[in-house]
Amino acid sequence: MRFVIIGGDAAGMSAASRAKRNKPELQVIVLEQGQDVSYSACNIPYNIADPERKIEDLVVRSAEAFREKQQIDLRTGHRVERIDRTTKTVHGHTVDGTSFSVRYDQLLIATGARSIRPRIEGMDLPGVFVVKNLEHGRSIKDFLASRKARRAVILGMGYIALEMAEALSARGLKIDMIKPRKGLLPWLDPALSQQVRDHLEQHGVSLYDGQAIERIIAKDDHLQVVSDPLQLDCDIVVAAIGVKPNAELARDAGLPLSVGGSISVDHHLRTLDPDIFAAGDCADSYHLVTEEKTWTPLALRANRAGWAVADAVCGNPVILPGIAGTAVFKVFAMQVARTGLSAKEAQKAGFDSVSVQIKSKSRAEIYPGAQPIHVCMIGDRATGRLLGAQMVGTDQVAHRINAVAVALLAKMSVAEFCQSDLAYAPPFGPTWDPLLVAANQLVKKMPPTPR
Amino acid sequence: MRFVIIGGDAAGMSAASRAKRNKPELQVIVLEQGQDVSYSACNIPYNIADPERKIEDLVVRSAEAFREKQQIDLRTGHRVERIDRTTKTVHGHTVDGTSFSVRYDQLLIATGARSIRPRIEGMDLPGVFVVKNLEHGRSIKDFLASRKARRAVILGMGYIALEMAEALSARGLKIDMIKPRKGLLPWLDPALSQQVRDHLEQHGVSLYDGQAIERIIAKDDHLQVVSDPLQLDCDIVVAAIGVKPNAELARDAGLPLSVGGSISVDHHLRTLDPDIFAAGDCADSYHLVTEEKTWTPLALRANRAGWAVADAVCGNPVILPGIAGTAVFKVFAMQVARTGLSAKEAQKAGFDSVSVQIKSKSRAEIYPGAQPIHVCMIGDRATGRLLGAQMVGTDQVAHRINAVAVALLAKMSVAEFCQSDLAYAPPFGPTWDPLLVAANQLVKKMPPTPR
Repeated sequence: MRFVIIGGDAAGMSAASRAKRNKPELQVIVLEQGQDVSYSACNIPYNIADPERKIEDLVVRSAEAFREKQQIDLRTGHRVERIDRTTKTVHGHTVDGTSFSVRYDQLLIATGARSIRPRIEGMDLPGVFVVKNLEHGRSIKDFLASRKARRAVILGMGYIALEMAEALSARGLKIDMIKPRKGLLPWLDPALSQQVRDHLEQHGVSLYDGQAIERIIAKDDHLQVVSDPLQLDCDIVVAAIGVKPNAELARDAGLPLSVGGSISVDHHLRTLDPDIFAAGDCADSYHLVTEEKTWTPLALRANRAGWAVADAVCGNPVILPGIAGTAVFKVFAMQVARTGLSAKEAQKAGFDSVSVQIKSKSRAEIYPGAQPIHVCMIGDRATGRLLGAQMVGTDQVAHRINAVAVALLAKMSVAEFCQSDLAYAPPFGPTWDPLLVAANQLVKKMPPTPR
Repeated sequence: MRFVIIGGDAAGMSAASRAKRNKPELQVIVLEQGQDVSYSACNIPYNIADPERKIEDLVVRSAEAFREKQQIDLRTGHRVERIDRTTKTVHGHTVDGTSFSVRYDQLLIATGARSIRPRIEGMDLPGVFVVKNLEHGRSIKDFLASRKARRAVILGMGYIALEMAEALSARGLKIDMIKPRKGLLPWLDPALSQQVRDHLEQHGVSLYDGQAIERIIAKDDHLQVVSDPLQLDCDIVVAAIGVKPNAELARDAGLPLSVGGSISVDHHLRTLDPDIFAAGDCADSYHLVTEEKTWTPLALRANRAGWAVADAVCGNPVILPGIAGTAVFKVFAMQVARTGLSAKEAQKAGFDSVSVQIKSKSRAEIYPGAQPIHVCMIGDRATGRLLGAQMVGTDQVAHRINAVAVALLAKMSVAEFCQSDLAYAPPFGPTWDPLLVAANQLVKKMPPTPR
């Protein structure tokens, strides 16, 4: 049997490796249009921050290792252009222009996502970049090495934009950030979002939200981002306004798309065509809380979905329960964590959403280094169910969110979560963890349920 | 109605405060033998580490605040000596020798635990201490302030002993630790325990386990702990060999005791007598995993149990689901975390216990500062159920354990836990969190269950 995979990054290579481990006799062919496989895209901003490190350090496993150690038929420089579902064949061209066709028994589309390029004049100027793959990272590092850049403008204020703000700030640049819509991290509770805003401003970052970006122009020896009457002078522009799924191959083959244009898959990662799977940033998923389709292009999901496809192809199908929407990032010292639904998302999904905001500490009050932690926790007044949580703070925030992520997987009520036996020692938190403080407040707004 | 509480620390004052909040008209009397109420015992080692801080900093809320702001009738210097269940009266003496009697409608015994004093010669020598309450902390600080102490011997190697090792090391003392039985933290997986041992030795701590402590003797200007042929010279000895419940009042009143001599209570914290509750370090609890009685004198449980008693007394009884046995501590830079059962405990409890040990990283492999994390995860081969986890490492370990603590509350299988949507970003872990790496290994040893 032949298992063909389009795309050689997280989902694709996870699927290929696991399929070979599951069933060594399986023929596994990976068609990757570029030369880089299995690299850590999430680390690109941190790599850019450090001029001493090479972008190639981000390659987790070389194409040769996959070929020689795992017997995966990995074909780099192979761009697939069409899927013929009738003949079960994919067609395309290699990087040197030769056409190729490969027949499949089972196919995985793992084509990932790409940066959205703002449709404005000046995006093609030297010094203007997007940041998604290794090649982008390399270009930005080469550019910074080639001149003394002093100011950067970042288009967008999502987590990649914020990570790039930290990275370029570490390189000594003054940072301006701009986005058309009002609001920094609009999925965060406003009180928590304000904490992040204050932190950025304390680190010298200027935030211009609610400012339409009109164009980028070249001025003598520098660039200017124009957003009348605002004119932001800089040496480098990085656009990080979001990503979109690479779903054209699937669409052109008649496979249905879903949220955000991602490829629609079932709990087994199957598309409408039983012989074609999709996984990773190009595919959708179910949300644990809403049980509706969602699109969450994140690394853990991509790896897990790749494994699930391999298991299905090898005859041991697993059902992925869906994603909780857990995400963390840091910008300077500020850690931001979320899982489940925000109050707004919960309302939109039809829950009788109610939330609390509390402020607690990262360590016991009197333990040196204790920092504020702000928590927002969301529940459903109708059923008492826990729907989500968000946290910000500069000390020991990120991992705390996992307690809620597991509670969402278990579909716990707020009252049940209140009884969690969470860890306590003075260096790591108050006796009642900030999450329990929030849950103890939230449960008062829940219906009295028999426990 | 009159609610009488014996003991004014975590469980007692939590119960008093919550009962007054629940029902302001309730008469709440707290009888505390000492003068200190509501102090943070867990912070004593960290306070000792810092000569600039006063031991009084550990008082969370003063007796006056409880009396004036919360209308709690808090009587310090009141030692209860007898409970007469027939007349529903407690009898005792005040610190100045006056006898008193107080009638109750509902009674809470929250008498806590006390340090076990080793039965060896020399325990009463100047410079020999136990460490449990504020007064002990004060004595140790006064002693250290009064002379140039250079060496300490700590009797015991439990988590308080280890926290004291760090504290006294921070004060510039060379530390020897000694205990009669072989093994450092015997409830830890041997591979994990070895990591802690190595870390202690790197910090100049000498460990003598499997050495019976014979006596302590005074020598000219110093002390000597004798364990033939070993003779440990030192300026100060701290005994931290464990605690035992203050259950004599309950026992003498004919109430049944349980594990470790703790007071036996049901899921509502009631003793055999429906009008008498027990909570905090003097009372037992149910273990979430074994559903058997256990005794876990820890702060969160004490606070939570105090609340539950107040709720029951006020007519809103809640059932505490039991404890997962979550515990964390740090010694120097090493963080140790556990929840649920160890492999040995699981076996002893009748499970078909199976475990894995894995080594992963605290951050993405290529992110600066990534440190090893060792995880041991335990499951039940018969049912596929997750039974517990343990972790050690020097970076971002403590909070990770909470994901497993919540999974135990939900009685998840290992296969279900494998699907947890845990947080990922390079500063906070690899794509697959160390817990997921362990769970993905452990699930291979579990029975194939329909998911």
